[in-house]
Amino acid sequence: MLVIGEKINGMFKVVREAVQSKNKQAIQDLAKKQLDAGADVLDVNVGPASADQLKDMSWLIETIREVTLAPLAVDTTKPDVMDKGLSLAGKNCFLNSTTGEEEKLSEFLPIAKKHGAKIIALTIDKAGIPNHAEGRLEIAANIVAKAIELGIDPASLYIDAVILPVNVAQQHAPAVLETIKQTKLLCDPAPKTILGLSNVSQGAPSAQGVSVRPLIDRTFLVMAIASGLDAAIINPLDKDLMDAMITSELLSGKNIYCDSFLQAYRKK
Amino acid sequence: MLVIGEKINGMFKVVREAVQSKNKQAIQDLAKKQLDAGADVLDVNVGPASADQLKDMSWLIETIREVTLAPLAVDTTKPDVMDKGLSLAGKNCFLNSTTGEEEKLSEFLPIAKKHGAKIIALTIDKAGIPNHAEGRLEIAANIVAKAIELGIDPASLYIDAVILPVNVAQQHAPAVLETIKQTKLLCDPAPKTILGLSNVSQGAPSAQGVSVRPLIDRTFLVMAIASGLDAAIINPLDKDLMDAMITSELLSGKNIYCDSFLQAYRKK
Repeated sequence: MLVIGEKINGMFKVVREAVQSKNKQAIQDLAKKQLDAGADVLDVNVGPASADQLKDMSWLIETIREVTLAPLAVDTTKPDVMDKGLSLAGKNCFLNSTTGEEEKLSEFLPIAKKHGAKIIALTIDKAGIPNHAEGRLEIAANIVAKAIELGIDPASLYIDAVILPVNVAQQHAPAVLETIKQTKLLCDPAPKTILGLSNVSQGAPSAQGVSVRPLIDRTFLVMAIASGLDAAIINPLDKDLMDAMITSELLSGKNIYCDSFLQAYRKK
Repeated sequence: MLVIGEKINGMFKVVREAVQSKNKQAIQDLAKKQLDAGADVLDVNVGPASADQLKDMSWLIETIREVTLAPLAVDTTKPDVMDKGLSLAGKNCFLNSTTGEEEKLSEFLPIAKKHGAKIIALTIDKAGIPNHAEGRLEIAANIVAKAIELGIDPASLYIDAVILPVNVAQQHAPAVLETIKQTKLLCDPAPKTILGLSNVSQGAPSAQGVSVRPLIDRTFLVMAIASGLDAAIINPLDKDLMDAMITSELLSGKNIYCDSFLQAYRKK
């Protein structure tokens, strides 16, 4: 499975402060740590506090590029920041993200095409996030159609069925799993599926002093992998989460068994 | 999900010794502990060392019945022991197990019918355990047909697709998950699905001094639940395993969310 490391995001204090003080070391450490832990791609998001997103995104990407050529997922809602970010990030990168709304697709799909970027697309439209798999799949089908219309290979689409916190919207969890299963049936070659994982456990409390968030996260990731998930945006520094992911890939027959399969995956 | 506690089995030393020395307390403790931890049913197996299985099975069941009326899964390959065990165990119990071989079905299905017992049936025939889901489903279909022929409700069948150790037969894990998904399509009402879990991790080693067996067990259980599993024979005293199971049931929408969902399930 494709692991997109989520840690270089201005929502995290350490990143926000590094961007403000132009502390390259902190960002480069986070990049290397995530790659060492098994991330394939690094998400890059300046965060909502940034006063100059174009400048901060450029600085972040240039800073990361000093230590690694790993693919990046340029994570912004602003088309100009996306365009600039993808031009600096280079080949095999990801546009993160567009929704299924017409105007978003019209803005973002051409930017992805221009840079040859893969596309993370959320099953959200003007009415919001549908409650059931059917509605999500309808939006996904529309995204696929738009992409094909623009000459974009649907296999470069990563459909994110948008999980909501289980504590407030429990019925969305099975809907997302069902969407993951059925997205593969939309066209041939099929679009890929992706999950922005940590939203599932937002707001879940501690039980007997221990946060249940990691348990919810890793359990849902394993269920999604059993449903055919191709990629996830996660915290690769969560060792239990990565162990669960590696083991479920093993049990799906996607990695070959060896006695040290947990270590072998990380050294891949 | 239906949890069948696996601990009262003569393969475990503490049970073997308790049977030999007629130590009621040890067996009754194991029964109560498993029920407290969330088990719905208790498996009862005298183990291969028993010199008088009929006598030992009777003693075990009578000993358990002194402290609980919870359903039991009478676990033996001997028809006379099964018949005696089910007659002592009472209503709502399980025959564990028959294979799909003609002579086994002819022996065991009538015993189950006589006692109104649910039936755990393994997808094994004379040729062994098929490598792929198709072969397993063919055996399952044959078991269902035989049961219907004898007037047994297929909803009282629990089909076990027989997981083999991932370290020697890795390709069986996805085959079992696929069988679980498709068993539901065999007839209406559908047979149920069950998993004798711990076999999946037999022989898997320690990694950096920590056994990877519990990780493999709980990851495969969550994948099986995501595939639609109805029941499992597991160790309910493994807290991490039970937490993973409860959380995956929550994310499947089978339990209602509350902040203390882990505790709430166990107190059900």
